[in-house]
Amino acid sequence: MSLVTFLSDYGLQDEYVGVCHGVILSRAPRAQIIDITHCVPPQQIATGALLLAAALAYMPPAVHLAVVDPGVGAVGADARRAVAIACVAQEGTRPHYLVGPDNGLLLPAARRLGAIAEVVEIGDSRARIQPTSATFHGRDIFAPVAGALAAGARLEQLGEPLAPELLVELPPAARPARAAGALRATVLQIDAFGNLTFDLAPQALEELSLELGAEVVIEAPGRSDRTPAKAGLRARVGRTFADVPAGDAILHVDSRNLLALAINRGSAAQALAVGNGTQLLIRPAHPARARAPRRR
Amino acid sequence: MSLVTFLSDYGLQDEYVGVCHGVILSRAPRAQIIDITHCVPPQQIATGALLLAAALAYMPPAVHLAVVDPGVGAVGADARRAVAIACVAQEGTRPHYLVGPDNGLLLPAARRLGAIAEVVEIGDSRARIQPTSATFHGRDIFAPVAGALAAGARLEQLGEPLAPELLVELPPAARPARAAGALRATVLQIDAFGNLTFDLAPQALEELSLELGAEVVIEAPGRSDRTPAKAGLRARVGRTFADVPAGDAILHVDSRNLLALAINRGSAAQALAVGNGTQLLIRPAHPARARAPRRR
Amino acid sequence: MSLVTFLSDYGLQDEYVGVCHGVILSRAPRAQIIDITHCVPPQQIATGALLLAAALAYMPPAVHLAVVDPGVGAVGADARRAVAIACVAQEGTRPHYLVGPDNGLLLPAARRLGAIAEVVEIGDSRARIQPTSATFHGRDIFAPVAGALAAGARLEQLGEPLAPELLVELPPAARPARAAGALRATVLQIDAFGNLTFDLAPQALEELSLELGAEVVIEAPGRSDRTPAKAGLRARVGRTFADVPAGDAILHVDSRNLLALAINRGSAAQALAVGNGTQLLIRPAHPARARAPRRR
Repeated sequence: MSLVTFLSDYGLQDEYVGVCHGVILSRAPRAQIIDITHCVPPQQIATGALLLAAALAYMPPAVHLAVVDPGVGAVGADARRAVAIACVAQEGTRPHYLVGPDNGLLLPAARRLGAIAEVVEIGDSRARIQPTSATFHGRDIFAPVAGALAAGARLEQLGEPLAPELLVELPPAARPARAAGALRATVLQIDAFGNLTFDLAPQALEELSLELGAEVVIEAPGRSDRTPAKAGLRARVGRTFADVPAGDAILHVDSRNLLALAINRGSAAQALAVGNGTQLLIRPAHPARARAPRRR
Repeated sequence: MSLVTFLSDYGLQDEYVGVCHGVILSRAPRAQIIDITHCVPPQQIATGALLLAAALAYMPPAVHLAVVDPGVGAVGADARRAVAIACVAQEGTRPHYLVGPDNGLLLPAARRLGAIAEVVEIGDSRARIQPTSATFHGRDIFAPVAGALAAGARLEQLGEPLAPELLVELPPAARPARAAGALRATVLQIDAFGNLTFDLAPQALEELSLELGAEVVIEAPGRSDRTPAKAGLRARVGRTFADVPAGDAILHVDSRNLLALAINRGSAAQALAVGNGTQLLIRPAHPARARAPRRR
Repeated sequence: MSLVTFLSDYGLQDEYVGVCHGVILSRAPRAQIIDITHCVPPQQIATGALLLAAALAYMPPAVHLAVVDPGVGAVGADARRAVAIACVAQEGTRPHYLVGPDNGLLLPAARRLGAIAEVVEIGDSRARIQPTSATFHGRDIFAPVAGALAAGARLEQLGEPLAPELLVELPPAARPARAAGALRATVLQIDAFGNLTFDLAPQALEELSLELGAEVVIEAPGRSDRTPAKAGLRARVGRTFADVPAGDAILHVDSRNLLALAINRGSAAQALAVGNGTQLLIRPAHPARARAPRRR
């Protein structure tokens, strides 16, 4: 039995996701499909790439279908490619396949899964549904190719070879600049609990000499027109939510190994009134003390 | 391995959908279930019928369970029937089965799947769960019958024969009247991107002599108490979202082969402040030019 | 083929649910997974317990993974246990397994499934993912143990024995006190239709001598800061929604066998402006008549 995972920004209120399941199972009746999420904020490629990479680290070898595709159907100079990628973690292991638009969505996950062994361009794949719609390549191109791979087709049967170095990269995130003893953090994702995941690796804490138990202040560096944030939430550096009393905020390394802010039994997103993409500042509450050398 | 698809207006915040899965798999342990969507707006039979018909066109032969059922449990003169329908696309192919309330939800999909070969009334089916609740026939009648079919039962074992011509039709939609050089369009569905699907076939564009690239104005014909719409959004007739600059509106034929309005990298629903059922007018921006004969 | 059911408060906007599916299928590639719901209100253990117990009554023997876990990762005196429980409905039948935090979430379902035959503590299970995160035990402890059980592992291989009587109970709900000829009802859950499920068994109707057709008034007993409720909605005691005209309210026994309030083709939650946890009063509209003895 072969496995297909599926991530998109299609939302759940329409038949879009179910139709893609039907197309996959028409081609690979024995496949099992895991829905990673379909609630990536519409057309937010970077968020989709983050969630995809975080999820695939825990998946067995599979065909991974991912569609966040604002450029669907464009032709000519604006056209984005449609691609299928084979990744091999180490010689002798079964490959992972990634199928989706070539807009940066797939690359962070591909790199985490292992070396990119082969890429094909599938925009004109003979596996696609014809006539091909201009607005739903998930159904008409990506799902059929994913289904064919799950049914045992070889990559080279499904498209034209493409040099891996031609794959499109995500625009680099604004580097989290250190600003006058503080760290600039961008909210990458907000979960159902209102926890905020930042674009900062755990090492960022060391840059500010912040250890477990240290106190920080989370500030809105300025007003954004779309999501004005309230300023000055105090938080403690900790391991898990319950390290602070209910209602208190905690800065921790989350399950994706990124820096994150939560309120124990509450919602950090609500407390700060922030949204995806909001920029915040993380500042030691007691800079001198935080920087003092400490024994371990 | 047999396939069951499932559409409803149950939403996802309760155990309703999962319970129906359990009931199906209790009867057909090897079945595979595709959730088409469970976020049909509550009790909107016409929207459910639209999404079901759009989805089933892409499904392999299967048992299709669909429940949008405002009349659940009513008795006497108000009672709606519960039915299971066999459709055969062409002789010699495996049938599709449809299971659900006889309130118009199933018929558009049945017609698209092929000739209706057989119908049974299943309100008193021996497959049902007893005692049968008055409010959750999805769990107690429809899912057990769907599970029995997936396990190989024959239709005539599951209910009493019913003449297909007795099946209830949806009330016909108000005919999209042409009004003073404009088309009246009703919003049938709004997707996660804020794209609006209208009750208009692609031929409607020809009625207004609108070709690719033509400019139109989308107007609210009057005030609705529930969803007052803003007036006068300009849009261009095109193939896909990226045919216009980000933020601009595009009138196109969507993946369900219906006329639809989108804003490239934006939300048409937000821009027009409309909801399901809102009526709009589509009017050529330059009537004279749009109507001029053009060479192809 | 073995079955795993899965309930949580993870929501659907992240990769959390999909990752757990991946972890389960890594260990039990032939398992089938039913998602009961992942939209339990964040950290509401009592609501999760209600939905879990309601769902499991309709599930075949399976491994039931359930995670509503505000205390995840706490250590020392605050630590909650992680447990796996075997329940046997009657001798000779296949057991159900429950896997999750020991915070009261699992016990109501366990009791409904049958006698608790065996419990193990799995916080240090050799099946867990290491290093184990402090915030996502669903992925790192509970899903691996559920997957191992689905793959055929025995309970005693997965943790340390624990006496069943040490399992943590939910705090008892405030007893629905009778208040001056009225019943106090707490809203336990609101579904997609706006139907309100109360913490009252069907017998509550008898306490007020309310029979089918009787009229009641639903009142907000006082102002709650968070969800002020409007007062004085009239409803009729009935069997199903269609027993009253569209727009009218009906007090009925719902599909979970609890007292519930609905508005036919409308939303009781909207009409009363209530939320989960709101307390209401149910009062006979005509106390004298309602209490009069009636022939059956």
